[in-house]
Amino acid sequence: MITDRIAEFLAQKQPQSPCLIVDTEVVKNNYLGFVNALPFSRVFYAVKANPAPEILRLLVSLGSCFDTASVEEIQMAFKAGAQPHQVSFGNTIKKEKDIALAYQLGVDLFAVDSFEEVEKIARVARGSKVFCRLLTDGAGAEWPLSRKFGCSSAMAVDVLCFAKKLGLQPIGVSFHVGSQQTHLAAWDHAIKAAAELFSALAKHDIKLKMVNMGGGFPTQYIKKIPDLDAHSQVIKQALIRYFGNALPETIIEPGRAMVGNAGVISTEVVLIARKDRTDDKRWVYLDVGRFNGLPETLDEAIRYKIVSERDGEQLAPCILAGPTCDSADVIYEKTPYLLPVSLQVGDRLLVLATGAYTSTYASVAFNGFEPIKTFVI
Amino acid sequence: MITDRIAEFLAQKQPQSPCLIVDTEVVKNNYLGFVNALPFSRVFYAVKANPAPEILRLLVSLGSCFDTASVEEIQMAFKAGAQPHQVSFGNTIKKEKDIALAYQLGVDLFAVDSFEEVEKIARVARGSKVFCRLLTDGAGAEWPLSRKFGCSSAMAVDVLCFAKKLGLQPIGVSFHVGSQQTHLAAWDHAIKAAAELFSALAKHDIKLKMVNMGGGFPTQYIKKIPDLDAHSQVIKQALIRYFGNALPETIIEPGRAMVGNAGVISTEVVLIARKDRTDDKRWVYLDVGRFNGLPETLDEAIRYKIVSERDGEQLAPCILAGPTCDSADVIYEKTPYLLPVSLQVGDRLLVLATGAYTSTYASVAFNGFEPIKTFVI
Repeated sequence: MITDRIAEFLAQKQPQSPCLIVDTEVVKNNYLGFVNALPFSRVFYAVKANPAPEILRLLVSLGSCFDTASVEEIQMAFKAGAQPHQVSFGNTIKKEKDIALAYQLGVDLFAVDSFEEVEKIARVARGSKVFCRLLTDGAGAEWPLSRKFGCSSAMAVDVLCFAKKLGLQPIGVSFHVGSQQTHLAAWDHAIKAAAELFSALAKHDIKLKMVNMGGGFPTQYIKKIPDLDAHSQVIKQALIRYFGNALPETIIEPGRAMVGNAGVISTEVVLIARKDRTDDKRWVYLDVGRFNGLPETLDEAIRYKIVSERDGEQLAPCILAGPTCDSADVIYEKTPYLLPVSLQVGDRLLVLATGAYTSTYASVAFNGFEPIKTFVI
Repeated sequence: MITDRIAEFLAQKQPQSPCLIVDTEVVKNNYLGFVNALPFSRVFYAVKANPAPEILRLLVSLGSCFDTASVEEIQMAFKAGAQPHQVSFGNTIKKEKDIALAYQLGVDLFAVDSFEEVEKIARVARGSKVFCRLLTDGAGAEWPLSRKFGCSSAMAVDVLCFAKKLGLQPIGVSFHVGSQQTHLAAWDHAIKAAAELFSALAKHDIKLKMVNMGGGFPTQYIKKIPDLDAHSQVIKQALIRYFGNALPETIIEPGRAMVGNAGVISTEVVLIARKDRTDDKRWVYLDVGRFNGLPETLDEAIRYKIVSERDGEQLAPCILAGPTCDSADVIYEKTPYLLPVSLQVGDRLLVLATGAYTSTYASVAFNGFEPIKTFVI
């Protein structure tokens, strides 16, 4: 959303285009929204969504914990003031030296989905707590969920038994319903699978106590999404349905839903052209594209709302593309985008809900273009 | 290719994984190969393929010119010793302020494919030379060529006439057959279209003199490619067939074919796992992936040759993925990759022909992972 603070920043500072502006007030409200809707869950912010120091410091001050993907992210969380017990090393693919380093730094909570990873942790992070990630199908998620993470339930039983055998603490199970998940039923299915795993482990004398419900909470782009209350209800009902009165501890790992709607990308129209005089659609080229801020438009997966000062005027479909010499740097083509007919080269556009998975994804210097600059206000 | 120099560097320096090593001797041979095969063409190296200063300096010393995508790339070429007349601003999508800056720096050769771009150049780079890019279909190219660049032949006539009217010098036409193009017929079709444009412009009293034949020359990955001599023959024959004895000046813009086979990425196996005990395929996770060095594995477009010290042992198919927590960070899945059955976590693999479109494409810090480090030797 374009908050008053963002509008004021843009008007007063007139920052060079392109840039990302993130309003920490929105992040704060999102955090409080999660605490309010799911008061029984601990929040582990998915640092990868946006690791800006100002965001991490704010979340530390609010009491958030952190889900991290690498030693670098662990160090960012610590630098922002997080304590080791507030950090989970949530990547199931870790080098042994990184596990050792994390453990030396005090982190003792690790994600696994394979025997090999359990062996590494047992070797260099003795006695740590591990949770096993279950494979989910991601149906209903807008950003594709591959089979990259997680294992089958049958294998998860073996992996957690193996962890116990190697002296680790098998404390629970995790899943991920898929990023920008809009089908609420996905939560029910995943929680059911988690409960079944608790029962299966109990037969092996392992009492699990924690369900890491992951992220996947959607942020508002163009398509309407279920709100946090609707999520809360489905999640609570499923927990009660499948766990009865032996409710587990739960963790959530919002990333997109914590920072997505807090950010706005300001971009400039570089060129408007047709390929032929008879072309019915314009090509509109922006100074931001697939390689410097909008990577999630890959396969047109995430469809952002784009605002122009000419909104309200007549609209016509156009093909949107980025500024590089790469043919793959096209934003929306299969489903053309409606923009004002009167749009001009030099116009500023605002791409909404771009606080997550934008800035750190940007290329180092592809085509010589600098990564997008972030202003956290 | 793993040259002796690269093998020696890896053995002696034992650089941290992942990293890219580029052998300038190979770049030099590639440059001389182009000069030898197409002695009548001037070489404009596509800086975006790999802008490492050592590569640019080498190419300056050999007499190369440079095709650039941004003011930053122009400045890199100058810093390496290039003169303004050796630089073309080849991006058809340019901010007016960048055109002005390039012109102030002495650059007076610009690509266009639209009226709007001609207007910008006429305003801030008075009297400059422009060439118009024709739309081609890219059939046969392994890296997808969209309709993002170029215009129809009919429109190119109008665009170049318009350039003349605004006081610019319409000097020629450009095309791009598509990156990693392996169908030689694509060159014939494009050169034919260029010749037709020369005739059409002659009727408007505009005598074009230059054909910028772009890049697209392939580098050797796994699939066999036609060699440079085969390219040279097809190109020469087409020029003679369509231009007769009024041969135009020609330019080529190799990027991938100049540096691709000069680079090797050294990577480490982070994890080998199955999703279930009954899985017939292993997932092999590397410390390099879609976001830190192998972006062109998008949609499995470019299939790299990967070498292991265990080559020669029994092979089995596996799914290859990168190290980040992003589900899209999968390298080869639709067509699994054959790797030794005995492969172990910690093994070093070498990904060949990774000198182009790898290092500068890498994300700034996605998931906290650093961009891949380059060593130019």
